[in-house]
Amino acid sequence: MELQKVFCMNGGSGDLSYARNCTIQSVIVSLTKAVRVDAVVEFYSTFFPDNISIAELGCSSGPNALFSAFDMMEAVEQRCLQLRRSPPEFHLLLNDLPANDFNTIFRSLPEFYQQRRMIESSGGGQFFVSGVPGSFYGRLFPSRTLHFVHSSSSLHWLSQVPLEVQDKSKAPMNKGKIYLSKTSPTCVAEAYLMQFRRDFSLFLKCRAKEIVAGGHMVLTLMGRTRGSEPSSPEYSYMWELLGEALMDMASQGIIEEEKVDSFNAPYFSPSLEEVKQEIEREGSFSIRTLDLFEASWDAVHGSRQTKQEAAASGEITHAKRMAKGVRAVLESMLKTHFGEGIIMEELFSRYATLLEGYYSRNKAQVTNIVIALTRKFEEDNILRASVF
Amino acid sequence: MELQKVFCMNGGSGDLSYARNCTIQSVIVSLTKAVRVDAVVEFYSTFFPDNISIAELGCSSGPNALFSAFDMMEAVEQRCLQLRRSPPEFHLLLNDLPANDFNTIFRSLPEFYQQRRMIESSGGGQFFVSGVPGSFYGRLFPSRTLHFVHSSSSLHWLSQVPLEVQDKSKAPMNKGKIYLSKTSPTCVAEAYLMQFRRDFSLFLKCRAKEIVAGGHMVLTLMGRTRGSEPSSPEYSYMWELLGEALMDMASQGIIEEEKVDSFNAPYFSPSLEEVKQEIEREGSFSIRTLDLFEASWDAVHGSRQTKQEAAASGEITHAKRMAKGVRAVLESMLKTHFGEGIIMEELFSRYATLLEGYYSRNKAQVTNIVIALTRKFEEDNILRASVF
Repeated sequence: MELQKVFCMNGGSGDLSYARNCTIQSVIVSLTKAVRVDAVVEFYSTFFPDNISIAELGCSSGPNALFSAFDMMEAVEQRCLQLRRSPPEFHLLLNDLPANDFNTIFRSLPEFYQQRRMIESSGGGQFFVSGVPGSFYGRLFPSRTLHFVHSSSSLHWLSQVPLEVQDKSKAPMNKGKIYLSKTSPTCVAEAYLMQFRRDFSLFLKCRAKEIVAGGHMVLTLMGRTRGSEPSSPEYSYMWELLGEALMDMASQGIIEEEKVDSFNAPYFSPSLEEVKQEIEREGSFSIRTLDLFEASWDAVHGSRQTKQEAAASGEITHAKRMAKGVRAVLESMLKTHFGEGIIMEELFSRYATLLEGYYSRNKAQVTNIVIALTRKFEEDNILRASVF
Repeated sequence: MELQKVFCMNGGSGDLSYARNCTIQSVIVSLTKAVRVDAVVEFYSTFFPDNISIAELGCSSGPNALFSAFDMMEAVEQRCLQLRRSPPEFHLLLNDLPANDFNTIFRSLPEFYQQRRMIESSGGGQFFVSGVPGSFYGRLFPSRTLHFVHSSSSLHWLSQVPLEVQDKSKAPMNKGKIYLSKTSPTCVAEAYLMQFRRDFSLFLKCRAKEIVAGGHMVLTLMGRTRGSEPSSPEYSYMWELLGEALMDMASQGIIEEEKVDSFNAPYFSPSLEEVKQEIEREGSFSIRTLDLFEASWDAVHGSRQTKQEAAASGEITHAKRMAKGVRAVLESMLKTHFGEGIIMEELFSRYATLLEGYYSRNKAQVTNIVIALTRKFEEDNILRASVF
């Protein structure tokens, strides 16, 4: 599967779209607001640029990317008011893979521009938006043209399933599973970690060329506590249960078991240590913040977790919401692998049932890492975003 | 009709798409290659920037925008070879209205990137692409960030039908016609010219803020010879005949005559004089080139113009090709005005027949203006594309 050509969140704005089901991602964006705002205000207050370029990597087609930029712009504008300076121009660069539904996000822009025009007329900075299609595991922007990079809930996606794991000439290495599991051989765990290292290091190298010295980067991704295994249930339950739902369907002859054996998630949730090592090894960025935090489904609609509570309040359960969210993210990939014939309704209804069971015994939450980095000054990277 | 929300070329890559029917636009792009290439090579050879930002305004979803940029990049790279310099990075910014099908053009990019990677590996410059949704009759890019602006076959589209002409409280001013015609009252002709002046002047003002001093702009649009009337048949036949086809359908009760009366094209083909006046009045640009040229359908597939010749060669006639091209451009607008019910097949088959008649008596060609401009140096616009 050529991931970079097929992987995309569900487009449009319908019931199954990512835009309507990115609830946990919205929680994560709001939990990390302070880190982003502090970094961008500090950048502004140090360099007073006429223009701030903010790249949003893995923007998808939902509104989160715009909300996160609006928070930052608002904070800079408030700082300008305090300092009695005219605000800078803001340039928001929305990136995702070429298969992403950019049309939906572009068509929602006139509404946002209208909001911004009211802010601009009362002294806000002018606001420009571009879309940048391509993989962030490669160069996306000209050299030294970015001041701020943000990426939320994207960097746990690898550029590909580790080649060692998808080797079709050998017997399936991760039989009956679709991600790292207690039963996965050690070499599978090693292959995943190596793939993460290569990808994350390449990501840093590319951004180091694109970000001006003194510029900032704030990243959030799924992660793990120090010393934990990626296959521990609290980090892998999403995949473990989806694999179980697929295997149930295979055992009933609805899909082929070989197809399940050969499907592996291009995903890795690193520990703080693993992230730190790569940042230090790559060397272009200094670390401002490196922390773990939990994003809980309770933040979405209170703590109604059981079927009964949810039914009484007219809401769907956390498990159903989670299943819809995972479907909005994975549908493109599953269809490419299993063929259009795979019955998504059935798969995700089984998945929701398994998640109900899990959440009745465990907290409905996901563990995340937040990383704030600053591009170091170097002789070959003097402070300018000059195009010349 | 909120033109900026609804107007778009037919998307996708099917038989009725703009991408498959932008033949005359391709001819125009190839006829103006020398003007673009000369300007960009001169710019490069004067300032030797590390990075060249090229904006393509009105890019649509077809491949023309990319081909035109490739010509310019190739020319700069050849110049670099002669001068034994490393090539600059190239940043192509594709602009069109938010309703444009950006998804189709973005999904075609991996193929172009692959071509470019081969060129880059033999010493070509790195190539980046962004999409910029919005009207070019407003600001699109941060201040002083563009080095080269190109727009082909777009600027004859006005930002709106002149308000005086679409005033619903009065009797229709342009009865039975959809554009300036011999029967149009003088005030309609004046309203169109005034709208063009306002729009073109605003276009220049916005670009003047975005283009660095010394940067270039090459524009082509439909135009007229000095002293001619916009309603002369050679400049208005496309609209005159489409209006005739619509009135035929109205007279047979297929569509409402009032709907035809209230439809007016947001289009104007200026004369060289009218263009020159606005450029000089606005004052930010100096004129390098200002010329008229004819783009002929004969350039597309030889000079097979009659039905018999076309049938013998297995090609469709110029008239049919023209009708398909006009449909790919106007379908969104016609559907919004006449409702989904308007039978496009029937309208454009009638239109093709009328065009066959016209082309049997006249040359199958359209008159264009090419304009090459240079952003003047001013104290407040020093030569830099600095993001600070």
